[in-house]
Formats: sequence, C-alpha cells, structure tokens
Amino acid sequence: MIVVMKIGAPDAEIENVCDEIVKLGFKTHLSKGEEHTIIGVVGEKRGEARTTAMSRLAFMPGVDKVVPILDPFKLASRSSHPPNTVIKVGDAEIGGDDFAVMAGPCAIESHDQLYCAAETAKKCGCKIIRGGAFKARTSPYSFQGLGEEGLEIMKKVTDELGLKSVVEALSIQEIGIVAEYCDIIQIGARNMQNFALLKAAGKITKPVLLKRGMMSTIEELLLAAEYLISSGNPNVILCERGIRTFEKYTRNTLDISAVAVIKHLSHLPIIVDPTHAVGVWSYVAATSKAALAAGADGLLIEIHPDPASALCDGGQSLTLPNFEKLMQEMKPIAEAVGRKL
Amino acid sequence: MIVVMKIGAPDAEIENVCDEIVKLGFKTHLSKGEEHTIIGVVGEKRGEARTTAMSRLAFMPGVDKVVPILDPFKLASRSSHPPNTVIKVGDAEIGGDDFAVMAGPCAIESHDQLYCAAETAKKCGCKIIRGGAFKARTSPYSFQGLGEEGLEIMKKVTDELGLKSVVEALSIQEIGIVAEYCDIIQIGARNMQNFALLKAAGKITKPVLLKRGMMSTIEELLLAAEYLISSGNPNVILCERGIRTFEKYTRNTLDISAVAVIKHLSHLPIIVDPTHAVGVWSYVAATSKAALAAGADGLLIEIHPDPASALCDGGQSLTLPNFEKLMQEMKPIAEAVGRKL
Amino acid sequence: MIVVMKIGAPDAEIENVCDEIVKLGFKTHLSKGEEHTIIGVVGEKRGEARTTAMSRLAFMPGVDKVVPILDPFKLASRSSHPPNTVIKVGDAEIGGDDFAVMAGPCAIESHDQLYCAAETAKKCGCKIIRGGAFKARTSPYSFQGLGEEGLEIMKKVTDELGLKSVVEALSIQEIGIVAEYCDIIQIGARNMQNFALLKAAGKITKPVLLKRGMMSTIEELLLAAEYLISSGNPNVILCERGIRTFEKYTRNTLDISAVAVIKHLSHLPIIVDPTHAVGVWSYVAATSKAALAAGADGLLIEIHPDPASALCDGGQSLTLPNFEKLMQEMKPIAEAVGRKL
Amino acid sequence: MIVVMKIGAPDAEIENVCDEIVKLGFKTHLSKGEEHTIIGVVGEKRGEARTTAMSRLAFMPGVDKVVPILDPFKLASRSSHPPNTVIKVGDAEIGGDDFAVMAGPCAIESHDQLYCAAETAKKCGCKIIRGGAFKARTSPYSFQGLGEEGLEIMKKVTDELGLKSVVEALSIQEIGIVAEYCDIIQIGARNMQNFALLKAAGKITKPVLLKRGMMSTIEELLLAAEYLISSGNPNVILCERGIRTFEKYTRNTLDISAVAVIKHLSHLPIIVDPTHAVGVWSYVAATSKAALAAGADGLLIEIHPDPASALCDGGQSLTLPNFEKLMQEMKPIAEAVGRKL
Repeated sequence: MIVVMKIGAPDAEIENVCDEIVKLGFKTHLSKGEEHTIIGVVGEKRGEARTTAMSRLAFMPGVDKVVPILDPFKLASRSSHPPNTVIKVGDAEIGGDDFAVMAGPCAIESHDQLYCAAETAKKCGCKIIRGGAFKARTSPYSFQGLGEEGLEIMKKVTDELGLKSVVEALSIQEIGIVAEYCDIIQIGARNMQNFALLKAAGKITKPVLLKRGMMSTIEELLLAAEYLISSGNPNVILCERGIRTFEKYTRNTLDISAVAVIKHLSHLPIIVDPTHAVGVWSYVAATSKAALAAGADGLLIEIHPDPASALCDGGQSLTLPNFEKLMQEMKPIAEAVGRKL
Repeated sequence: MIVVMKIGAPDAEIENVCDEIVKLGFKTHLSKGEEHTIIGVVGEKRGEARTTAMSRLAFMPGVDKVVPILDPFKLASRSSHPPNTVIKVGDAEIGGDDFAVMAGPCAIESHDQLYCAAETAKKCGCKIIRGGAFKARTSPYSFQGLGEEGLEIMKKVTDELGLKSVVEALSIQEIGIVAEYCDIIQIGARNMQNFALLKAAGKITKPVLLKRGMMSTIEELLLAAEYLISSGNPNVILCERGIRTFEKYTRNTLDISAVAVIKHLSHLPIIVDPTHAVGVWSYVAATSKAALAAGADGLLIEIHPDPASALCDGGQSLTLPNFEKLMQEMKPIAEAVGRKL
Repeated sequence: MIVVMKIGAPDAEIENVCDEIVKLGFKTHLSKGEEHTIIGVVGEKRGEARTTAMSRLAFMPGVDKVVPILDPFKLASRSSHPPNTVIKVGDAEIGGDDFAVMAGPCAIESHDQLYCAAETAKKCGCKIIRGGAFKARTSPYSFQGLGEEGLEIMKKVTDELGLKSVVEALSIQEIGIVAEYCDIIQIGARNMQNFALLKAAGKITKPVLLKRGMMSTIEELLLAAEYLISSGNPNVILCERGIRTFEKYTRNTLDISAVAVIKHLSHLPIIVDPTHAVGVWSYVAATSKAALAAGADGLLIEIHPDPASALCDGGQSLTLPNFEKLMQEMKPIAEAVGRKL
Repeated sequence: MIVVMKIGAPDAEIENVCDEIVKLGFKTHLSKGEEHTIIGVVGEKRGEARTTAMSRLAFMPGVDKVVPILDPFKLASRSSHPPNTVIKVGDAEIGGDDFAVMAGPCAIESHDQLYCAAETAKKCGCKIIRGGAFKARTSPYSFQGLGEEGLEIMKKVTDELGLKSVVEALSIQEIGIVAEYCDIIQIGARNMQNFALLKAAGKITKPVLLKRGMMSTIEELLLAAEYLISSGNPNVILCERGIRTFEKYTRNTLDISAVAVIKHLSHLPIIVDPTHAVGVWSYVAATSKAALAAGADGLLIEIHPDPASALCDGGQSLTLPNFEKLMQEMKPIAEAVGRKL
C-alpha cells in the first residue's frame, strides 16, 4: 500500500508514520513530490495484518489517504492460477469449450411441470436443469417453494432423464439436504454476502454456483468466492445476474462487461442469468446471445411449460417453444465464437 | 391493480382478460381511453392470490402492462397502525420523544475497550451500547469477531454500567445466543433479505434492529420488516445506513430523506447509522446532526477509545472526545426540534 | 392517467377530484375497490394539458397518487411508426441489414493520425469515420480538441478515402460548422439534456447521433430524441454508451439490454459505443461482439495508430491490429445473426 | 502519480517505464515490493502534461495500473485557498454566517404570482428570490417558460421589494440577458458538464450558482467549478440537489454528506436544493432542516402561492403557509448551529 501525506505535512509527522510502518512489520520507501510526500509500504500481504495497518496509518496525523495496491482476493485470482478452472458435472463441462445452458422453471411446482420443461431442455442439448425448492421472495406473502418435496421431484426427474441439477439453498440447514438430492448448490444473489452460508458451502465438495449480489461489485463477488475456496471448496461457478441501477424498463441491468472483466481477473467459470437480469421474457433472447458472444461459459435461464400459470415470476420465463427457438438461433453464434452448444 | 391493454387491442382480447380476472376471483371495471383500454381489478388483496393474478394477467395477449395500486406491505404500514410504535428497552424509548443514541465500537475487542467506550457513552446520556461479536466482513482475511466471548464481555459491561445492548446476529444459530446475552438483536444490511434469518428473528420477543440493505429500496426494507412482524415479532426498529451510489468520497450515500418517507409510510421507529453511511469519521458529526434535524428517532454510531488500533473499521469511528463534542453540539438541536437527548 | 385516492377518502373528496377532471377537459371513470377508490382520466393526451392535469390532481385533498399510463414520447415510439427507420449516409445504412461500424480516434490530432486510422477502418469495411474536433473534457486542464482545424482534417481525409464522418458538436454555434464539414452530427452524453442544443440540432437536415446520458433512463433518451424529431429532424441515430453504476472495474456499465428495449419501444436505429462504456481497451472486443449479437445496428468505436501517444483517452482505444482482429472475429457472428459487415 | 507494475514484470519493462517517465519530464522513485514493483512519478502537476503521461504510461508493457495522487481540481480546492469564500449579493452573504434561503416558484408565470411568493419570502427573512424564465424540461411537450418576459417580471418584482434574484440560463445566448436582469446566474444540473456554457459563464462577473448534475460525482462538480474559476469568475456557489439512485419514493436522493465533503475539499459556499432532491413537497421540510444542521450555507427552495395551478412541478412546491411554518421551525435550529436566519 501507499501512504499519501497531506500537502505540507511536517517532517516529524512523516517520521512518525515511517516509524509506525516499521513497527507494523513492513519496510518503508519514501518519495518526496512537489506537493505530496508519498510513503511506500513494502512487504504488504493480504490478511489481517494489512487491514490493521491500513486503518492504523489512515488515522495518523498528517496522513491524507492510504491507497491499497494489491487486489484483495488471492485464491480466486488468475495470477494465482493462470489456466481456466473447468468444472465437470456429469457430461457437462463448465469453463471449458461447452456453452453450458442450465434451464428450468423458477420454482418446482409439480412432477409434470418440471418433467415437461426438463424434457424440452434435454432435447435442445441441455445437461443441467435448474429449479427452485426453497424460494427467496421479497414479500412474505409470495409462494415460498415446495421445500423438500421439490427436491424429491428434481431428483426423480433428473434420474429419469439422465440429467444433472442446480438448486438454491437459502440457509446452512438447507445446504446438506440440497447437496444430498442435487448436483450443484446455488447461493443466490441476496445471500452473496451471507458469510455464514458461504463458510458452510465451503465445507462441501459439490460445486457451488455463486450469484453476484444485485448490489455487489465484481471485487466483492470474487471475495465471496474467496470465502468458498478458502473454506475448502474450489469448485465455484460465478454467475452475473444483473445489477441494480436507476433504469426502469428492465428489472436489473445486465453487466455484460463483467464477463470479460472476470475472465481477466479470475480463473473461475462465469455464466450469465439473463432472466433475472432483465425480468421480462421478451428481452431474454437478445441478452442470452450477447452473453454467448461476450465469452460467458453458459447460461442459467428460466423456462416454463405454461408461464401464465407459474407460481413464481411467470412474466420472465420463456415458453418452451420460445426456448427451442433461442437455442436454435444460438447454435451458429456458438460456432462463430468457437463454443460447443 | 390496473391492467393496461396495448393500443388497438381487439375486443376479443379485452374480453378474455376480463374473463380471466373474474375467474381469479376479482371484479372488473372497464375504461376505454382514446389510445388505451384500462381494466381495473377490483377486490385486490395482498398475498399469493394477487401475485399470481398479476403474473397471469401480464402474460395474456393484448396486455401492455399491469400496474399495482396497493403498497405491498401491510403490517408495517402506517395506514394499518396510525400511531407511532414506541419500543421500550430498559429506560430507553425508541420511536417516542427520546433521541436514542446507541454508541459503541464496531467490534468488541476486550473488556477494557468496551467498558471505556460504554462509560463515556453513559456519561453523555446513552442508554444502549452497540458492539459486534460476530462480524460480517467482505474479505475472509479480515477479523471475524470474538464470538461468544464478545457477548460475555458485552453482558458484563452493560450489567456493570446499567446499560442495554444491541448486537448483530449473522445466522439463525446466532439469534438464540445473541438474544440470551443482549437486549436488541441487529440484522445487518447484508442480511436484510436473508429471509430464513428474518423468519427466525420473527420468532423471538426481543426487539430487532433491521438495517436497510445498501442497495435495497425503502419498499424492500418495509417488506423485510413485514417478514419479521408477520412471523410474530412486532418490535422492529428500522435503520437507514446509506445506500450504494456512484459517489466515491463517501463509502455509501446517506439517504436522509428516507427518514421522512418512512415516517410517512410506516409506524415503525427509524434510526440512522451515520458511521457506515459515510465511512469516514470526519463526516459523521454533520450527518448525525442532519439525522436529528430530519426527524430520526436515534443513531447507531461507532466510537472507539483508540480508533488507530481498532481491529475493525477504525477509520470511521469517532474518538471518545469527538463523540462527547458531538453529543454536546446535538443537545441544542434536539431541543430545537423537540427531542430529548 | 389514473388517480388513486387515499384509503378511506370521503365521497366529497372523490367528487371534487371528478369535478376537477371534467373541468380540465377529460372524462372520468370511477372504480371503487375494497381499500382504494380509483378514478380513470379518459381522453389523456401528451403535452401541456396532461402535465398540468397531473400536477393539479396530485395536489388535491384525498389523492394518494397519480399514475401515468401513456409513454410520454410519441414521434420516437414504434407504435407511431411501426417499421424500422433506416438512415442512409453515403453507401452506409444505419438501421437496416448493415452492421454499421463507425471507427476512428477519440480526438483528431493530425492528418497523418486520422488518415492512418481511417485507411485501416476502410480496409476492414467501415464506411463512416469518427473523430472529435471539439472535446468535452471533465477537467479544464485536458486537451480540448483542434477545433475547426480538426474539421478540415476530417473533411480532407474522408474526401481522400471516399468515406463519411461523424463528429460531435458541443454548442449551438458548433452545429452549423460541424454540419458544413461532416455527415453526421453527434450530440454527446453530457449534452443529452441540453435542450437548447437539441432544438438547434432539430433544425438541420443531416442525421444526428444522439448518445444516452450516462445517468439517463431509456425514457429520457427517447424524450431527447422527441425534441429532435418534433423540432423537424427525423434522422436520429440513438447510441447506448454505458451508464453510471457503483461498479469500479469499468468506467461505466454497458446496458446491453437497452438495445432490445429500444428496438421494442422505438423505430429509431440504436448503436453501441463499447469504448466509452467500458473505458479499457481490453474489454472492448467482448462488448462489441455482445452488441452485435444483441441486435444493435452498429458500433461507435475508438481506434488509434498509437494509443500510447494519444492526446485523449489512449487507454481505451484499440490499436489498428487489434481492431482488424476484432472485425475479423465479428464477421462470422454477423453472418450468424443475419447482418452484413 | 504512482505506476504499479504487473506481478513478475521483468526488469527490462521496469527500466523502459522509468525511461519514459524521465522523457516525460518527471523524476522516478522505484520501490520493489514482494509482489509488485511500484514507481513513483515525482514532479506531477495538474494539466495536459499529467493527463498525457498517465495515458502513455498506462499503455506500456508490464504496467498494471496508474494511480493518480493529486486531486484533479486546484482553484476550487481548500488547500489552494484555506478560508471560506463568502459571496455578497446585496445584503445577503453566502458562505458566511448567514443561512441564505433563496425561495420562489419553479417557473415565473405572472407578476402577481411572483410578487405574492416574493412578498412572503421577504417577510420570512429571505433576501434572494428564485424563479425560472427559461425552463429545461425533459419532455418537449412541457411548459418551457416565459423567456425574456419572465426576466422583466423578475426585475420588476425584486426592484419593488428590494430583493435580489437568481435565474437559470440554459445557453450561452441566455447568459448575457440573464446577467442583465438578475443578480445570480444559475447553471442547472443538466448543464453542469456543458463546458461551452461554463466557459461563457466564467467570462462574466456576477456570481454563478452551479448545480451538481444528478449523475455527477463531487469531484466532477468541483472540476466544473474549476472551469468557471479558471475562465475568470471566482464567484461560484455550489448546490447539491440530489443524485440519481435506484430508490423510487423520492425523485432523487439528497446526498446530505456532500455538504460536509465539499466543506472539507473546497472553500466555495455550498447550498442545498431540497425541492428537486426529493420531488415531493411533504418531504421538503425534513430535508431543509437536515441541510441546515449539516452545515449548508443556504437553501434553494420552491414555493408557490397556488401549487395546484402551477405550470411546472407544482407537486414539489411548498404553499406559502407551509413555507412560513418551515422558516419558523428552522429558526431555533439555526441558532443551535450558530447561523443567522
């Protein structure tokens, strides 16, 4: 880190700061500019010592600001692990050449509903089915999911069709049970900084699909991944699902450049959820294609045999024919960008 | 709710929508404008029936949009409970004439540290002490709190000084233990939409201090309160603590008008956390005074005997002399706006 | 519009509101719900009468809120003009089958610099060259452009190579001179709501490229286009160039779904400026491909023969070889989505 | 500025960067950390040389990032001018002990309307009247102001009552005419980065009231002030008027901490416009009091004798009795914080 002294800070203050840096276990490197004196802190490492040092120095007389230099995440960073991480779930590969489309309903409502959606998804080439058993709803008066019954339906349908599944867990208690029935455990956007949940999910071995909070920076997403990896689970799939902005025609704003930024900063796979990003089914196709062209490793997408009767977020789900059409239209784009679909 | 039909929607589509509304258990009220036909849905109630109806209608041919009319929260709304809710914790009253300042360190570090802060706070008139035992930290490498040991210190210090306490619980497991040692259970900004946690906190009787998520709307905050109240706990204190914006000189942007908006929409007490809103100690005094003048019911504020050595967020904590000065300066303002401090 | 009365508003207040609506020249349509009474205002039109009516009604005793129903723009809306508007500039077509890539440097610095960039752009298939003569710079100490000398260079280079040009005008005075030398007049993001400038640009006949403000909604962008069209110039090209959010790794956040939303709401062409959206050259290729796949009608993109020596925003410009590579990579995607490149 | 090299950048790249820094006219200061090498650039000054250097260095092989150290504004900064700037307009002092409340209607509609509002304002102690003659409206179909006729009315009313006036100019042409009739020229939020307008307003001598753009950072506001001051006009009054966020109950979000931040960074006076910040008259009183308590130098506030009939933004204007009540309530707060009202 770098300590920038105030303009005209007297020598005594500069010396005090240098002494403190040495006491904290670092070396100093002084540079006197025309207005500001700058003190480099040499030997900086991630972790508590650094956090403590930053806050202590920021407080000393004569200090203008402390500028961090290191990115705060390490295990999730590409510099610590240059090749892409590829996660295998059955026949599916996430982070490799495949463009992994994970489709299914917002909420599991019945065997028929899920089977019907999953069968179409399989026909279109999907290997992983999504579907919610425990639903995080903004209002306490909205449908909260079938719970364990939903997990049983998911298990049955994926067994029947030879598919894999991704299902969200909302609490520490649910992680074990979701991991028992399903193949990928999803941590939702509202729980991205539920650190107790992250630590618990870091203790299992099944892959975790970690959604970016609607209010979270890319740096915070990678730090949440760092919680998972440092707790013991390196199988992390990141998911961009739209961030909150002032724009009102879409529910959120899909941060499409996050795909390229994350590919640059991290070795982890990054997929896109166009459904929650836009919140309106008619904009899902355009954003799905954009995600594919931008280099995403897959999609998490909502489809429903009868969106008008859905118990949850019907207005954003694709009908099965619309989904088949989208998959058809994405095939030549996938080929153009060298991905298998 | 109101269904707005597309310009030029044919009569058959309008009739289908009306039929569906009747099937859903509501009455219709048709209004043909020069461009749009509008269908009022009469008999609307909060809850699943309404959510289902909205999504089903939004999907029908010819429908342009569905506009909700009712605010989605009920138990938290002022129209359901016109007088202010006043919450008593020991001698303190939150939501009444008192301006309730809850001060203390970000993290409990030792008996000495907490005692020293609490003693000053008491001297300045505070009746409630804050302090974290379980810390939600963006980085897994930051100090995570003393855990139960911290709760024991808090219990000891508040007993010694005759004060009450507010401490955050990060998970369902922690709610019971925090409730055992402390007087108010805090749900932090990152957990505002951790619905499993809200339901658990709704089952206890001690008051809950619910912080607004840093990217949550006021409506979502009131819906989170609705989870607590509808689960059985009406003792909810709301807390505005800054929202995330593009501005960089402060950590977040204090939404000062949220105080007035919430007073208008809800009967619940609303306090302000200036410390996390601005993230820089030198801007805490100005925003504390603003909160008092704007009509807030209190403050949640960080103070530390030695901020430079704090294990957590020292740069935003007031020193004890600065806190005493602020309390002194707030007294005449409190008098000017008719609050007891 | 719809007037929603407060819960329990007495009949006298409802009658007063109805009387006022009739006085304002509209008809009323009353609908009594279980909680709220709703009054439809029939005969609503865009323009002053409506604005006045909305504000007058909002103020009457017993009124909870006034909900507008009509989108506020008309000439820019697809409902007023269902087919796509296609704008021809020389051989280029914007809004038709072409994917119109407009490339060039941020600022025109010299004949050599611009010629070199334009020659490469032409070789790659571009028909329109961009380049700034008058620069809008956040700091008064940054390079402000060559002014009219820059326009002369642009005119010379495009004449030599048989290309067309797009150049920004910052003030009413500059509109005439830019229109004299160049083919498309750009109105920049910071001027999107400079209504005096919009009215002046509405009086010329050359096409206007209107950039979305970095914190403007899509609705406001379409209203700014409405200023241009209603002042007499229907040749408007919209440009999404990133909006301001809390994310820090990119300069702005490209709102990729704006392409689909605008295609739905409006008949005007919509292009994307990936350069200003991300602000870092290494993320430009991914976002350019995303824009193409999402259905944009073209790109506005910065290239420079020697970005390291650029007088303006070098760090976001593509080198000429990187631009050639991008154009090569976009060709199969263009084919996949049925666009000519 | 500081150049941070990539992890493991070879010595040759480090040397090249150092050579370039010397060629650019600066000195270097090298500091090798455990992961990164950091190069201090000594002799940094504001202006073109610095901007050029930053972009050139950012592009060199081996460079990770370039971190600026100096704040980019100078003439507006408190370090360049430690005492507060106090601007005198008639008997009013802005930036001194007075809390300068500038009240009046959104748009000037008639002599009667303005006189009536101004008379009440004077009675309450106001010395400066606001009122729009040229209106910046999002929709081309909204009332655009009376133009020069409005200025004549303002001149007449302020002469009759012995008051001063503040009126917005939307374009370069209007600056001269507004300066002729009025005492303070307002530059509106949508024009904060209309650099041509800023330069023109920098050439006059009357004070300029510069409103923060709804999408602008504090740094950008101070850079816009820098345009005015460096063009020759040091009489700049800053105005915080709310920034755009995701919150929907208020039109914008008042950034109350901007008052304290600007007092810290700059010597210029800072006032608050609560009316445009919240956009709803019933939240204006709470935010006005907050601004006073937070240390603002005054208010710009909309009042109207008959808001229900206002041609512009009636829903956000205070009635005259509500304004009198607010002024009464603010008096003891002003006394508590040591301001004259």
